[in-house]
Amino acid sequence: MLKMTFARKVIAAAACAAALIAPAQAEEKTYRLKLAETWPTNFGTFSEPAREMAKLAEEMSNGRLQITIDTANKHKSPLGVFDMVRAGQYDLGHSASYYWKGKVPNTLYFTTMPFGMTAVEQYGWFYYGGGMELMQKVYEPLGLISVPGGNTGVQMGGWFRKEINSVEDLQGLKMRIPGFAGEVLAKLGASPTNIPPGELYTSLERGTIDALEWIGPAMDLRMGFHKIAPYYYTGWHEPATELQFLINKRTMDKLPEDLQKILLTAMKVSAYDMTINSHHVSAENWVTMTDEYPNIQVKSFPPEVMGAIKQANDELLEEAAAADPLAKEILTSQADYLKQIRVWTDIADRAYLNSMAE
Amino acid sequence: MLKMTFARKVIAAAACAAALIAPAQAEEKTYRLKLAETWPTNFGTFSEPAREMAKLAEEMSNGRLQITIDTANKHKSPLGVFDMVRAGQYDLGHSASYYWKGKVPNTLYFTTMPFGMTAVEQYGWFYYGGGMELMQKVYEPLGLISVPGGNTGVQMGGWFRKEINSVEDLQGLKMRIPGFAGEVLAKLGASPTNIPPGELYTSLERGTIDALEWIGPAMDLRMGFHKIAPYYYTGWHEPATELQFLINKRTMDKLPEDLQKILLTAMKVSAYDMTINSHHVSAENWVTMTDEYPNIQVKSFPPEVMGAIKQANDELLEEAAAADPLAKEILTSQADYLKQIRVWTDIADRAYLNSMAE
Repeated sequence: MLKMTFARKVIAAAACAAALIAPAQAEEKTYRLKLAETWPTNFGTFSEPAREMAKLAEEMSNGRLQITIDTANKHKSPLGVFDMVRAGQYDLGHSASYYWKGKVPNTLYFTTMPFGMTAVEQYGWFYYGGGMELMQKVYEPLGLISVPGGNTGVQMGGWFRKEINSVEDLQGLKMRIPGFAGEVLAKLGASPTNIPPGELYTSLERGTIDALEWIGPAMDLRMGFHKIAPYYYTGWHEPATELQFLINKRTMDKLPEDLQKILLTAMKVSAYDMTINSHHVSAENWVTMTDEYPNIQVKSFPPEVMGAIKQANDELLEEAAAADPLAKEILTSQADYLKQIRVWTDIADRAYLNSMAE
Repeated sequence: MLKMTFARKVIAAAACAAALIAPAQAEEKTYRLKLAETWPTNFGTFSEPAREMAKLAEEMSNGRLQITIDTANKHKSPLGVFDMVRAGQYDLGHSASYYWKGKVPNTLYFTTMPFGMTAVEQYGWFYYGGGMELMQKVYEPLGLISVPGGNTGVQMGGWFRKEINSVEDLQGLKMRIPGFAGEVLAKLGASPTNIPPGELYTSLERGTIDALEWIGPAMDLRMGFHKIAPYYYTGWHEPATELQFLINKRTMDKLPEDLQKILLTAMKVSAYDMTINSHHVSAENWVTMTDEYPNIQVKSFPPEVMGAIKQANDELLEEAAAADPLAKEILTSQADYLKQIRVWTDIADRAYLNSMAE
């Protein structure tokens, strides 16, 4: 660092000689970066990390980093963020890694997994348990850097119009539940579907689907599902959905070291902040929901159902691990980490919460 | 921000004129700050936030912020950090707010409280529930800024040489448990004592005390208590111990705005990181402890005992609130926040952890 300071002084002195004929600009070069979000405009807590990050980066860099944000309303390609950042059409993205599994299957594992780690546990895996290194192993060959972009916390199992009391009740269940969790339920006879967000409310109301999962009260309130489905099931399929900041590697390499550090730190703290705020807003919105609809019933799948779902999940993970050595490396790392840290989470957090609930 | 950039360019241009006879320094002014820690040298996870913060601040400022750290081994005054930062002898401190309750009683409430919020909940209160504003209400008149400095997570209830099966078992119990939690147990007939850390092991081994609380596996492993006490009780008295960065307000006012933002952001992210790493290291150390001593028994106080402790705690809090309007404001804010957020923590996190433990 002493060397860098010295180098900057030399540059400053050189710039000063030039300043006799032109304004000194060397120290003040402004980097203008463009960020594409997967989310539409005003998308609740999901809209916060990119904006907080951009503001922090500008303030900490004294204006040398200027980041403009395009929502999906602007660029019209919510699931094109990966390709646009890769191509350099955008420098940065804010999205979620599991959206890219159709392009690069191993991106699936860096958002959340059914029966997986909680947010605190998963941050432990990312930052202290080898997760960041494995994520870079997947993204580096693509010319991308991926870093955590904020967590939703435990997502709810979804809104159901009828109770699930046995594995049989899953047979033929028409449920909006995309991705890996949908595959898990399909193994047990359910009929997972994907329906555009704008059509979900009507589909549930009219019985086109029997159930759906969205996120949690922080994001569910505005969707209004609590008005038409009496049962809100607790979570299992996305215990810690981590969003993602994507960075084009060529953009990163062009930035001076201090601005690289500012950018990464602004991303890291904005991600942590969203994690905290998601929990906060869910608690607030839950009060609003239950004030308006006091009859919402919070349910958990009975242990028999949970056991069957977990077994189906384990089988699918085994297939994925058998098919790809890097998938196996990632899944083994996650399973080992979860096994070690959950023992402690149970002694510390679960015991505390249970003792206060008694 | 545009204005600031413009101002800096003017300064740069002026400095360049001077550069004909002296090196241009205006842009490169280095601020050297001194930080005092409450902790001794190499104090495990507690030593991390100050070092991570100093490194990040230096990197993000391209060397314009240089922070040196003195441990208690150097300044010899672990509990003098508050006074030293207040007097300007040090610019910054890393400690814990509840240590200052003898000087300013309302500082007690910004670390953790028995039966209080978990780390995620408490960060929610700090950043989105009015907690930071209340903390500044206490610290601003002292010429200080206090911000979160890293969380231990749920601290364990302590190491016991005998089981606690009833409230009667607390009668005459000699336990090292300082602070507010000690007062709570005293109300139920226990004899709380404070003993210097270096004497704790021998005191427990020789039966001078029957029990002690320290922190959790992340910090307890090196103390060796697991070798001489068979029962490790789960936590109730410090569910989310948040350390503290202290900043002398005059120092802060001297920094340019970008360096202020860099300093505060480096503190915030280092605090979050310690919170994650505490959980990670506790899980690791728990494996080491139980590998060496497989007979450690994890226990929770029975509901009857927990209920009696909680009632004693509530009575003490009521007395504190009745004695001071600001204490009442803080305690009411915390109680209201906890009531709202715990409902959600139970639905989201507790339900998920319980369903996986079944």
